[in-house]
Amino acid sequence: MAEVGSVDVLIIGAGPAGLALANWFRNSTIRVLLVDKKPGPTTRGQAEGLKSTTNEIFETFGIGAKIAAESWRLEEIAIWGTRKDGGAGIEREQVIQDKVDELGKIRETMLQQSRVEHHMLQNLLPHSNIQIQYGTMPAPVKIDTALSDESETDAYPVVVTLTGVTSDEETDGCCSMLTSSLQDFYGNGTNEEEHIRAKYIVGCDGARSWLRKQLNVTLEGDLTDSVFGVVDIVPKTNFPDIRRVCYLRADTGTILLVPRSNKEVRLYIPVESGSALPDPKDLTFERIMDAARRIISPYKLEAGSVTWWSAYRVGQRVGSHFSRHGERAFLVGDAVHTHSPKAGQGMNTSIQDAYNLGWKLRLVLQNHIQSNAAAAQTLLRTYESERRPVALDLIAFDRGYLKLFAAPSAKFDTEFLRAMKFTTGLSTRYPPSCAVQLPAGVASPADLGPSLLKADLVPGKRLPEFQVVYQADGTTTRIHARLQATGAFRLLVFAGDIVGQKQLREKLERLGAQLAAPGPEGLGELTSTPGGDADISVVARVETLLVHCAERDKVELLSLPAVFRPWSEMEGYDYWRVFADADSAYEGHGHVYERLEIEREVGRAVVVRPDGYVGAVLEVDDFEGVKGYFKGLGMLP
Amino acid sequence: MAEVGSVDVLIIGAGPAGLALANWFRNSTIRVLLVDKKPGPTTRGQAEGLKSTTNEIFETFGIGAKIAAESWRLEEIAIWGTRKDGGAGIEREQVIQDKVDELGKIRETMLQQSRVEHHMLQNLLPHSNIQIQYGTMPAPVKIDTALSDESETDAYPVVVTLTGVTSDEETDGCCSMLTSSLQDFYGNGTNEEEHIRAKYIVGCDGARSWLRKQLNVTLEGDLTDSVFGVVDIVPKTNFPDIRRVCYLRADTGTILLVPRSNKEVRLYIPVESGSALPDPKDLTFERIMDAARRIISPYKLEAGSVTWWSAYRVGQRVGSHFSRHGERAFLVGDAVHTHSPKAGQGMNTSIQDAYNLGWKLRLVLQNHIQSNAAAAQTLLRTYESERRPVALDLIAFDRGYLKLFAAPSAKFDTEFLRAMKFTTGLSTRYPPSCAVQLPAGVASPADLGPSLLKADLVPGKRLPEFQVVYQADGTTTRIHARLQATGAFRLLVFAGDIVGQKQLREKLERLGAQLAAPGPEGLGELTSTPGGDADISVVARVETLLVHCAERDKVELLSLPAVFRPWSEMEGYDYWRVFADADSAYEGHGHVYERLEIEREVGRAVVVRPDGYVGAVLEVDDFEGVKGYFKGLGMLP
Repeated sequence: MAEVGSVDVLIIGAGPAGLALANWFRNSTIRVLLVDKKPGPTTRGQAEGLKSTTNEIFETFGIGAKIAAESWRLEEIAIWGTRKDGGAGIEREQVIQDKVDELGKIRETMLQQSRVEHHMLQNLLPHSNIQIQYGTMPAPVKIDTALSDESETDAYPVVVTLTGVTSDEETDGCCSMLTSSLQDFYGNGTNEEEHIRAKYIVGCDGARSWLRKQLNVTLEGDLTDSVFGVVDIVPKTNFPDIRRVCYLRADTGTILLVPRSNKEVRLYIPVESGSALPDPKDLTFERIMDAARRIISPYKLEAGSVTWWSAYRVGQRVGSHFSRHGERAFLVGDAVHTHSPKAGQGMNTSIQDAYNLGWKLRLVLQNHIQSNAAAAQTLLRTYESERRPVALDLIAFDRGYLKLFAAPSAKFDTEFLRAMKFTTGLSTRYPPSCAVQLPAGVASPADLGPSLLKADLVPGKRLPEFQVVYQADGTTTRIHARLQATGAFRLLVFAGDIVGQKQLREKLERLGAQLAAPGPEGLGELTSTPGGDADISVVARVETLLVHCAERDKVELLSLPAVFRPWSEMEGYDYWRVFADADSAYEGHGHVYERLEIEREVGRAVVVRPDGYVGAVLEVDDFEGVKGYFKGLGMLP
Repeated sequence: MAEVGSVDVLIIGAGPAGLALANWFRNSTIRVLLVDKKPGPTTRGQAEGLKSTTNEIFETFGIGAKIAAESWRLEEIAIWGTRKDGGAGIEREQVIQDKVDELGKIRETMLQQSRVEHHMLQNLLPHSNIQIQYGTMPAPVKIDTALSDESETDAYPVVVTLTGVTSDEETDGCCSMLTSSLQDFYGNGTNEEEHIRAKYIVGCDGARSWLRKQLNVTLEGDLTDSVFGVVDIVPKTNFPDIRRVCYLRADTGTILLVPRSNKEVRLYIPVESGSALPDPKDLTFERIMDAARRIISPYKLEAGSVTWWSAYRVGQRVGSHFSRHGERAFLVGDAVHTHSPKAGQGMNTSIQDAYNLGWKLRLVLQNHIQSNAAAAQTLLRTYESERRPVALDLIAFDRGYLKLFAAPSAKFDTEFLRAMKFTTGLSTRYPPSCAVQLPAGVASPADLGPSLLKADLVPGKRLPEFQVVYQADGTTTRIHARLQATGAFRLLVFAGDIVGQKQLREKLERLGAQLAAPGPEGLGELTSTPGGDADISVVARVETLLVHCAERDKVELLSLPAVFRPWSEMEGYDYWRVFADADSAYEGHGHVYERLEIEREVGRAVVVRPDGYVGAVLEVDDFEGVKGYFKGLGMLP
């Protein structure tokens, strides 16, 4: 590693957050170094639940199918309580489906953290611009505080000293052996010190974050009274719902039971304040199991084998800042927020934090923010303004979740559905900013009228998932799987019924010409791919996509405006930018216009950010509105 | 490799057939050696279409999802003909869906042969009992003909001399470099000769099979008059249906156009006898393209890049024998049948041949045929009696397919649907044998009455695919994905409405007790897994599965007979053997009883062979019938 004197992005920590961040820089010339004090990839991690929004992220990295193939599904939740007839022991009260209807797909799957990390890591291997160095940690207090004065994009204000870690210092849950083919890729930590300069540094280094301390960021909040015992076991039990998520509420305490891969099961056993076991240090595996056995009685419960167990006091804290030093240093995931693991939010939120930051860094480092350096910093500042409120919401949710756990069943259904929506991320809405723009004359999201905006198609919310049919070959795709993490924005033109409505066809022709036109009047600079350029990092900054709802048979792809089927001298037309809202051979009809409440005779244009969030919602032919969005962001002068 | 003096199975050829065969021996102690004269895995192959039955095979190998994730789907077929108004050029006549309704899933996907081989090869890596040696070929005429006299299962009647191939002899389409980690696994071909003894030898060595010649097996049939030009190109074209399968029929000739991965397209251009280009040797790429351009006119067609092209005369021939020497030597795939590539049947049929043979060899080599050596040979003989008729049907189909290609459109739809069913394998029915048993008193499949057997649930046909819901957790599975290729038979008990029908519940209890009972009266020897045995090859010879159609909420898994939820001291109960024919959260209702025409008040028991074909169809409580099947096969005395 001696030859690496400088990188564009230095990422501290190669866990879920760091690996997700690094995945944003595939197919680019941005130089990225991940360092991790562990001697190699983890072979085990405690996290396992993957929310649908996280799975969508994996799809945009091109590893969604691989992860889905290994994942387990959980679809039922059983509620157990004390017996109604007053007898001893518990009985099943009800079984509910773990499902949010408007999501239209699986809400949550299970895959252990080490396999998730494995797939994200493998996805980096072909990309020589991204390097990982295990067994390495930054030496304390060597980060150069002068970085705060720099504002030029091309400066390297971060200076860090890296040192090797001898592998016996930190081997918990890590493999200490690397296969020879991986060694080439990873590089070895040495005991020599080396200095490295970086344009940006990102701390993905977990709850005891080194970078957080360097940046003097404090965690605000408290350790709670809640002490949890957690065990991962292969149970030997006659409890009938062992393969369902279960809430067991007995007089003697409560258990949250979550099936994991194969026959393994996780039990969370909260030990409230005032109980006989207030200090986590006093908890042993057998005492936790004894408590569990008292709750699950009259059923039997033994551990056939034990994979992991722990006891801890829940801290619910959020960092005072998510970025420092003029947006040159960032904190991601557990490094800036801690909470209970019960809602399965840790790994998901960490990955989603990283996903929010990555495209912004890529955009800035590729010099796509052209107006001035301040615009770049303004964009990077939205990382904190968008993600810190999510962390605060998560803490608030986490507090309520403990109470929900003990609530009477009557309220449970509706409360639980609300919780499921929250944990799935469906209620997240980022505030207005340069990247989330409201229509002219609208001051706040609350002022958005129903005439322009449907509740789910709102600037700042995630583009709702939907299924469309490719015009070219009749196969289907879900939209987020199509929106690969290339760093490109997308203009999604819902052109309406372009066969039945002549005026819509005319609007489309006009918009198509404007989008393709070169020079300051048009948007050609952003929508066109420099042809024949060998630089793999060059993709169009804005990819133009069309979703019509006309009869598919009556639309000929090659008659549509050229911007939606660009020509390449090497490969002919691009056939995969035009979609129909139509029936399919195997997956039914997506009913996109209906789901998004877009009128078929009116249409709509939507700017989608590289991370799949809605940047702006516009009239179908509002070309000036489209330009205005990219001007506001600094991508146009 | 000098230390390998003997193996159980010697496989000649590590293409799709050889790799599929080897996959049957995972998780066993059977010693397998694949040898291939190629210096390493192929990086390219011409085959690409995967039929649903082949994809089901990959699912049973545990690699279905990985292959599906990389595959492309083809769902529409466009028919083009000369213009009806008498003008020059072609016009679109119709577009039909590439779909067989009763299949209930995708009929065909596309993935290039080298990736298919890659996944099958990777799947072997963890299994040290299976070795691959590239750059190695058997020396001619050294196979010991004495093998025909041996009949003991434990004998090694095959003796072959292996020699190394210098890599410049045969490098077409192969990678000559192996990564270091793969080197360990593959072994290197040396130029030294080595002698190897084997119990069985299988020729998966393609159309110019070495083993076929050694065995004096002749190919019967003819080279046809049909000369084909085939090109794989990335087209630059304004032809609108370039991403659909197209049949183009112009006055100047015909083209079959098949989209491949990404933007690549394959064109088949048959040149009939009497044309100006009768000899394949006279065909050049440009002459083929010129012919294609004349047919596709008025549309333009250029090759942006050319991946592969060829010209050849179609041979339609089938081997006189599929096995020789007392079923000690076998021929699989292209080694015993050749035909035109147009129906996309080559790779599929090769894999399906291997899939038919593999479990039979495994059963015999694990000494599960206990009655006598003759019974083992009788089972192995069914490889030829089951697969040779399929090859003959394929040749007959192939002849008709050329005609269909030129047939008028009116007949095309129904003929084409029939062709799709044939090529999907839905019309295959193996004849009665020790492994395909008809009910007592029924002499031929034609005599099967509707009272006992539904058309698709017939001994000798593939178990129809269906979806069920796991009783334990409410998730779904398709049945073939559940029937992993472990070598186990399955007894599928369609127990009916065991809540509403008391007599069905009683029948189930009785059957469950009989299936679990030890000794000569019961079937415990076959249905139980020797507990705590460290030998990974030990699985129950017959896995007992239950599909009920009662209200799922009213069935408690642990109240069912123990044989359907066996207990393990290490892991507790097996939760994944009981299914409900019920609605699911995300995939709807499988309607299994309706699809298979099993009466809910009557039920049915089905013996499913390790390869997913129906071995016997019985009354739901016909325990003697179940025993009779395994007696007939030689697995019970």
